[in-house]
Amino acid sequence: MNVQHNTPIHIHNVNITDQFWSRYLEIVRKEMIPYQWDVLNDKANITIEKERNDETIPSEKSHAIENFKIAAGLKEGKHYGWVFQDSDVYKWLEAVAYSLHHTFDEKLKELADSVIDLLELAQEKDGYLNTYFSIEEPERRFKMLAESHELYCAGHYIEAAVAYYETTKNEKALRIACKLADCIDANFGNEDGKIKGYDGHEEIELALAKLYQVTKERKYLNLSRFFLYERGTDSSFFDRQRQEDTGKKAVIEGMHHRPLSYYQAHRPILEQDSAEGHAVRLVYLCAAMADVAYLSKDKEMLSACRKLWKSIVERRMYITGGIGSTVDGEAFTSDYDLPNDTMYCETCASIGLIFFAYNMLKNDTNSSYADTLERALYNTVISGMALDGKHFFYVNPLEVNPENSAKDPGKSHVKVTRPEWFGCACCPPNLARMLTSLDKYIYTISDDIIYTNLYLTNQTSIHVKGTKVSLQQETNVPWGGDIRFHIQQDAPSTFGLAVRIPSWSKTYKIYLNGAEIDQKPKNGYIIIHREWQQNDEIILSLDVNIQVWSANPYVKANVNKIAIQRGPFIYCLEEEDNEKNLHLIRIPKNEPFNYHFETGLLGGVGVIEVNAKKRIVQMEWDHQLYSTDLPEEYEKKKITFIPYYCWANRSPGEMQVWIEKE
Amino acid sequence: MNVQHNTPIHIHNVNITDQFWSRYLEIVRKEMIPYQWDVLNDKANITIEKERNDETIPSEKSHAIENFKIAAGLKEGKHYGWVFQDSDVYKWLEAVAYSLHHTFDEKLKELADSVIDLLELAQEKDGYLNTYFSIEEPERRFKMLAESHELYCAGHYIEAAVAYYETTKNEKALRIACKLADCIDANFGNEDGKIKGYDGHEEIELALAKLYQVTKERKYLNLSRFFLYERGTDSSFFDRQRQEDTGKKAVIEGMHHRPLSYYQAHRPILEQDSAEGHAVRLVYLCAAMADVAYLSKDKEMLSACRKLWKSIVERRMYITGGIGSTVDGEAFTSDYDLPNDTMYCETCASIGLIFFAYNMLKNDTNSSYADTLERALYNTVISGMALDGKHFFYVNPLEVNPENSAKDPGKSHVKVTRPEWFGCACCPPNLARMLTSLDKYIYTISDDIIYTNLYLTNQTSIHVKGTKVSLQQETNVPWGGDIRFHIQQDAPSTFGLAVRIPSWSKTYKIYLNGAEIDQKPKNGYIIIHREWQQNDEIILSLDVNIQVWSANPYVKANVNKIAIQRGPFIYCLEEEDNEKNLHLIRIPKNEPFNYHFETGLLGGVGVIEVNAKKRIVQMEWDHQLYSTDLPEEYEKKKITFIPYYCWANRSPGEMQVWIEKE
Repeated sequence: MNVQHNTPIHIHNVNITDQFWSRYLEIVRKEMIPYQWDVLNDKANITIEKERNDETIPSEKSHAIENFKIAAGLKEGKHYGWVFQDSDVYKWLEAVAYSLHHTFDEKLKELADSVIDLLELAQEKDGYLNTYFSIEEPERRFKMLAESHELYCAGHYIEAAVAYYETTKNEKALRIACKLADCIDANFGNEDGKIKGYDGHEEIELALAKLYQVTKERKYLNLSRFFLYERGTDSSFFDRQRQEDTGKKAVIEGMHHRPLSYYQAHRPILEQDSAEGHAVRLVYLCAAMADVAYLSKDKEMLSACRKLWKSIVERRMYITGGIGSTVDGEAFTSDYDLPNDTMYCETCASIGLIFFAYNMLKNDTNSSYADTLERALYNTVISGMALDGKHFFYVNPLEVNPENSAKDPGKSHVKVTRPEWFGCACCPPNLARMLTSLDKYIYTISDDIIYTNLYLTNQTSIHVKGTKVSLQQETNVPWGGDIRFHIQQDAPSTFGLAVRIPSWSKTYKIYLNGAEIDQKPKNGYIIIHREWQQNDEIILSLDVNIQVWSANPYVKANVNKIAIQRGPFIYCLEEEDNEKNLHLIRIPKNEPFNYHFETGLLGGVGVIEVNAKKRIVQMEWDHQLYSTDLPEEYEKKKITFIPYYCWANRSPGEMQVWIEKE
Repeated sequence: MNVQHNTPIHIHNVNITDQFWSRYLEIVRKEMIPYQWDVLNDKANITIEKERNDETIPSEKSHAIENFKIAAGLKEGKHYGWVFQDSDVYKWLEAVAYSLHHTFDEKLKELADSVIDLLELAQEKDGYLNTYFSIEEPERRFKMLAESHELYCAGHYIEAAVAYYETTKNEKALRIACKLADCIDANFGNEDGKIKGYDGHEEIELALAKLYQVTKERKYLNLSRFFLYERGTDSSFFDRQRQEDTGKKAVIEGMHHRPLSYYQAHRPILEQDSAEGHAVRLVYLCAAMADVAYLSKDKEMLSACRKLWKSIVERRMYITGGIGSTVDGEAFTSDYDLPNDTMYCETCASIGLIFFAYNMLKNDTNSSYADTLERALYNTVISGMALDGKHFFYVNPLEVNPENSAKDPGKSHVKVTRPEWFGCACCPPNLARMLTSLDKYIYTISDDIIYTNLYLTNQTSIHVKGTKVSLQQETNVPWGGDIRFHIQQDAPSTFGLAVRIPSWSKTYKIYLNGAEIDQKPKNGYIIIHREWQQNDEIILSLDVNIQVWSANPYVKANVNKIAIQRGPFIYCLEEEDNEKNLHLIRIPKNEPFNYHFETGLLGGVGVIEVNAKKRIVQMEWDHQLYSTDLPEEYEKKKITFIPYYCWANRSPGEMQVWIEKE
């Protein structure tokens, strides 16, 4: 296949020096990666917490590396942990790959190389790689795909291998990946004797698209297309496998009652027009569809992507970029059903939403994808990690009351402090690989236009229509709105530089070498197309005035409430700054919001203050639940908002994003 | 023991001729009792619905009578259904007893007598009576009390037997009950060799208090006191039984993880100061405590009752008299946590709350108990049954959206139509026995005062201090506020007549033989104490103006919302009258509410109308979830409230009790 699109800018060329994000990259490098390595090797002295009370798998340790040693024949023993435990190692490896690109570390590379060596030993002769099935139930291989996560794990390995190969040129890593993909190709497909089916958890599809891009092997793209198009065509596939299953116990307890929509297998992908089921699964599916649609110029698939995108961002997404309205199935529910205190909003789901958004940007140069990418990144994704880089949220609520979390079983999944690690540890390593690969989301190129999707200080060299352009972006975003692009090149050349006007910026000014440009945005970008000279400078001045948001009236949870945003950050109230009973606070109509930066707070954050009111709870209420005559009385109260991402980094307490207005 | 209190008025003396309630009594007699008999015999052509998706017990049939036949040796077979299936038969029998009192029916009595005969055959030699354990696991008798419901079932039989004996003088019924109670007495107690423990579901305690009252056998009261005081003293009792259990499978799947508070076994009863755990269990416990405190003049126990009463009505009760804020454990959660759309509010729990309130009235002559009794009765309890008497709610929500119930697993227990029957069929027969025993709640006597707790047309003869008083109550409550008492007696006598001023009546007027009495209420009652003459007449005129309620500000779910009441009825909006999206409706500040009675609607109900406003959802919202600039616009909309008890008797749709105000 001859790819006609310009491929997006390669991650190897962007160097992030941004103050806000460098801290995160350092945390991943210095804290998360070594820490996760200890966890994977059961050496960390931590409390592993079940993220849900109904978890049936023991989770006192990770055992993930040990599982590989046993599968490799280096040790004796039983598999321990979830059936998808392997993927923790793969996500760690992928984060290592990205991190080595930013800051090379020979020792870390040697460690990762040794993991690759171990994986090679654990891989079976025909390319199959999965410690649970190799150790425990080889006869059940590919026979319980609804629950087995075999292709899910394979996908995570392939993603890791592609990233690791790109950074380190470790060919063994890529060879294992190809062998694994070939094994899958040999077992799945439309041909006679192959399994006409797919994994219960999408992931292999997007991984194969990546493997295709690095190897140019068309068969991998075809296999991805097979999985995508096969999904949901035969509604009895999972059931048939379950009926034919001879295993003594369920692969994962309690999954058999999930409806097909949980796996997005309720209908063929082209017929899916609303985001249904397990939120992470859905966005991984969409991310794959968007990439494959781009790579194969598949307009029907792209059209299905657009429908699903709209379903999410127009009707099923929290203002923090969180998705998944219910804990039961960690799933979407229905349009406008966005409860703030019982939702799931898994960190991984917002990471998957970023994958989807990014792959849509390859297809459609529309800033709304970047808006959502940025919304998820600056809010739910980084809320998933404590400022110390060692504590993690799975669930990212928009409203929390510690007493409710403790006493209402329907809110027991909503933690008020970030635990150290999880039995089902998908979020922390997913966060590590997301943060370390941030550079790839900054720019995309389409034809001869460089699209700027994220604002953070970085330097890069980009080849546009054969010319090498050095692009320097300097900015005080996220706390400020000033961005300076500095363009350097060997000779004058003609191309476009598209700067995104974010949804949070109502006004803007843009200058070319000091002269204001009067140009309207197209699809959310102002495109400056010209013959660029050496040292040309674009100054973009965005509006970081505080935005006051209302929700769609159909969102019952947010009736009469507002949410505050400044720059890319959604803000929240915490008990620590505003005392208990945040729900008694009312924001008056015309009071000004005041912003200032507090260096000493939460690692340095911009806080927002407003003179609000707080309902007085009269003594008479002590002994009555309902009254016909007690008046509503208020007292003045200055309240302080902090950015949502850094909530729950002080004492446990209430938190609220949507605040009652007067 | 010499009982010093005056016992409350005996139910045999009240004859209800009230229009509103006679209909219910007729429904129970003509529809529910025969219908439930068919169900118990698997002859009804109905759909039995699981009330929860996670139920593990098959529920295609009841099999309850069949279980007794098998236990009696009349048939061969296995036990089928829940371990507490027997109690369905007992509750039916209790309802039959009360119904026969109102309307004697020889055929029905013969049928019930035959059930007693069957029970006698099923009872073991030592008095033990439980079909599950007799048929399936005799060796496990009394060995898994947390789950077994053995004493719960025994309690329901004893209650039924007492009622049936009182109506029909069937001594066999009472003999079986005593033999059963003696068996329990022989097995439980502080003495060596006896079990120092109690049932996971309270019920035996209140039943033994009733058995004591009819038999005057002190040992039954003592046994009840043993169970009450033993509860929660030894926190390892249930666990020890579970560890020693040799049964192959759990008695009830999935119960082992319940905390001790679920069973109110987390601490001794005198130390319990908040309503915790399974709501039905808690109110059954409290009902027993209040009765036993009264019968044994136990001030400490009464003081514990008062604490728990306050915990419920001041902090944990819905305005409809519903209790149980979460489906998980059908339980209380924490103070002021009263979500309107995920709660449980089981019909049985409100019935139990009535038992508790009634028994508190025996101890404390305070109208607040009667207020709550009336609140639960006129709202959640009768909401549990469709107007046809053949469909039942387990869960009584204050807010429903059919799409949410269908698509949010966290709301799947909230049904939008009343199913025909339930696999775990506690509510329908509990309703039947509640409605048929309504007469006993109308009056209580303390010293020489007759307290009127409920207003409904009835005639009764009451012995007060040796004088027989004929008391006639005529009223147009619940739709009106006029009550006339007519007093007749053989000779003038001195006693008090206390009339309750309900919490919904802000003003009132009271007349004695046409002359207005100027007297303030004491503990919620106006007590007219005098020497009564033949044909004296008291006229009470209550205020049935519409009441607009606000919730305690700590109730987060009801911020900025109001609820409407008229007379004893809480009102609600239904989609049928007001279109979809009830949450978009706002009630303006000074608009008058208009009331009229509609004969043709829902069997005849008073409806309330108001000129409200409805938020306009502008076209621009079609494609966005959040906006900073779309204005809030409203259109005028006349809205119609119906009484809560008759919701869900037309097309399935949205319903809402608490409505947003301007």
